[in-house]
Amino acid sequence: MAVNLTAPLAGSLHPVAGVRLGTAQAGIRKANRRDLLLIALDEGARVAGVFTRNRFCAAPVLVARAHLEEGEQVRALVVNTGNANAGTGESGLRAARATCDEVARLLGVQSTQVLPFSTGVIMEPLPVERVAAGLPACIADLRAGNWLTAAEAIMTTDTVPKAASRRVLLGGTEVTLTGIAKGAGMIHPDMATMLCFVATDAAIAAVPLRAVLAHAAEHSFNSITVDGDTSTNDAFMLIASGQAGNREIVAEDDSDFGVLRDAVADLAGELARAIVRDGEGATKFIAVRVEQGVSREECRKVAFAIAHSPLVKTAFFASDPNLGRILAAIGYAGIDDLDVARLQLFLDDVRVVSGGGRDPAYREEDGQRVMRQSEITVRVVLDRGTAAATVWTCDLSHDYVTINAEYRT
Amino acid sequence: MAVNLTAPLAGSLHPVAGVRLGTAQAGIRKANRRDLLLIALDEGARVAGVFTRNRFCAAPVLVARAHLEEGEQVRALVVNTGNANAGTGESGLRAARATCDEVARLLGVQSTQVLPFSTGVIMEPLPVERVAAGLPACIADLRAGNWLTAAEAIMTTDTVPKAASRRVLLGGTEVTLTGIAKGAGMIHPDMATMLCFVATDAAIAAVPLRAVLAHAAEHSFNSITVDGDTSTNDAFMLIASGQAGNREIVAEDDSDFGVLRDAVADLAGELARAIVRDGEGATKFIAVRVEQGVSREECRKVAFAIAHSPLVKTAFFASDPNLGRILAAIGYAGIDDLDVARLQLFLDDVRVVSGGGRDPAYREEDGQRVMRQSEITVRVVLDRGTAAATVWTCDLSHDYVTINAEYRT
Repeated sequence: MAVNLTAPLAGSLHPVAGVRLGTAQAGIRKANRRDLLLIALDEGARVAGVFTRNRFCAAPVLVARAHLEEGEQVRALVVNTGNANAGTGESGLRAARATCDEVARLLGVQSTQVLPFSTGVIMEPLPVERVAAGLPACIADLRAGNWLTAAEAIMTTDTVPKAASRRVLLGGTEVTLTGIAKGAGMIHPDMATMLCFVATDAAIAAVPLRAVLAHAAEHSFNSITVDGDTSTNDAFMLIASGQAGNREIVAEDDSDFGVLRDAVADLAGELARAIVRDGEGATKFIAVRVEQGVSREECRKVAFAIAHSPLVKTAFFASDPNLGRILAAIGYAGIDDLDVARLQLFLDDVRVVSGGGRDPAYREEDGQRVMRQSEITVRVVLDRGTAAATVWTCDLSHDYVTINAEYRT
Repeated sequence: MAVNLTAPLAGSLHPVAGVRLGTAQAGIRKANRRDLLLIALDEGARVAGVFTRNRFCAAPVLVARAHLEEGEQVRALVVNTGNANAGTGESGLRAARATCDEVARLLGVQSTQVLPFSTGVIMEPLPVERVAAGLPACIADLRAGNWLTAAEAIMTTDTVPKAASRRVLLGGTEVTLTGIAKGAGMIHPDMATMLCFVATDAAIAAVPLRAVLAHAAEHSFNSITVDGDTSTNDAFMLIASGQAGNREIVAEDDSDFGVLRDAVADLAGELARAIVRDGEGATKFIAVRVEQGVSREECRKVAFAIAHSPLVKTAFFASDPNLGRILAAIGYAGIDDLDVARLQLFLDDVRVVSGGGRDPAYREEDGQRVMRQSEITVRVVLDRGTAAATVWTCDLSHDYVTINAEYRT
């Protein structure tokens, strides 16, 4: 059960001019479910992407990155679930390229204008022939209003489709942003999500587009964790079709740049947090905010030490204010000169720790009250500087073990 | 249920001349269980210790380290369970010192000659008066044959007492080593165990004694992980009473040094692996060996990435040869120039991965056969150099969540 997360209403997802989506049931792993998505882009669209840093990155990641670097106009993105085409060596690369070839043939574009994405089980050969057989149905289904079915088609262990939409004004012109994401396990920074596709009709040049993407990734998918595992397949793609009619954003000092950057980061943040809310087995949604650090980097280290600790996460599952486990995580986060006597720890508004130990005014029932909530903020005040960072995570429950023990059965 | 681990027979634990142990039921957290241990040392014993590097280290760790650094002869170690005296600030330090004062008063030694240790719940005040009230019973109980009851007295979530014994010849003289350990969660390198006390009657000077300890720690407690959490209280103490009658080992180039070093490492390794076998919720015991790395450090990074992955650990729990999860963990271990095409992965004798993907000869039923075993070796061959490292871990089961969600109830 996802934590305070429901499927978006189809009507809430605005079409993005120049971007059409089509899905199909290709039977890649299981029958009778949508498992293939094609995103077709009109000519003139620009695409930026960030990918997993896992050294064992999947074949489609290698191919998508190579095609992006070719610098040709991207005309299609193709996504299959059920099979990650990872840990598949040379034959996996051939399968990813064959998928692109088939999309290119059907759409009348070049193979290097197609970006492939896969998610699902690792180390199984991708059944390319099933992907190819499903593509005509995707093409027949292509339309701008298909964002919700697209979100459904990329789900694996997700229990809720993840999609969101925004409209903002750029220099008086309304532009639209709509995105979908999937991922519920193997969630970790660099990259955190498994897959996310955000499209806007804004006109923006390639260089500032990449800056918008980098900023959004840092404050969304690279700030969440479910289980500390970094996937082999993660990708976050940002598409700008350029059809909104706004004056093109050509550089980061353009007055519209900040508006678009913040809108994309806000949208990506919502999708990233949706992934945590739908974290495998999650029953609690937890924000960990670390303040007054020397650097954002050290704040993130402390926040992730807390967010990764299985002991902390099981205590949240149990609604047990076993705050010593949070202190222990702070203590091993790797800040060598941390002065624990200056640190303060809060659960929402309740100060729990000060002076190196339990706050004199802290009462167990206050901690217990916060821990029973489905949404909790852990706030650590380091009293060392002015930097801050927030990461989002969930608890560790029996269902996490069940889901991951039985994933392939 | 611990994995292939049973309580040692009392008769298998050899007394160590010059070292006496006494336990008591002090009612520190729960009634009717041994929760207080006193280890009394004859004059002339030498003690070396390594402690947690957690910045939030507990009050007894700070006091024990300070007392060791004073350089006076240690005459007693006092250990309570039920309460870790961690995250307790100044009052925690006073409580740890008061414990030492009381031991010193009763034994007629200096307070700085006493080392305190605590394990149990964090952030609760230590009930010093109960510790003090229990000490006379410990003293009345002091004898050299009490190693097994001592092992029982330091258990927390442990299901099996952990103790082991060895005898080796140093220059023709038989010396004895006996040790006890506890810990089942919060197991992680630097320091991995929660508490371990090893005593020998060998005569050895302070400097080589510390070298023996450092070597043993590296190859035992710093090479295991259950859940990646580093405790606030971990300590590994090595006592040498000097009463065996061997020619004193005065330096590392002494011919007897290597014999004693290897015997202590072997004993500590057995105790460390016992902690993993009794890991919270463990159903499988897993050795992760990484070979042909550039350095021992990079081999350890890869091994710990595998051993820490919740996805890998739940797959072991499910006996599911979902080997892609192991590849993914290798991929994010942090070796930037890893060539995945050269890497080989084995499950016991079964080669699973070669050439960047599934080994052509691999059959799922072979992987399945190994995964069903209660003891499994994961072997990664990096083909980059000549270094190697082994770490030991266990699977992640439903019971881990249950134990840690309900620890305080």
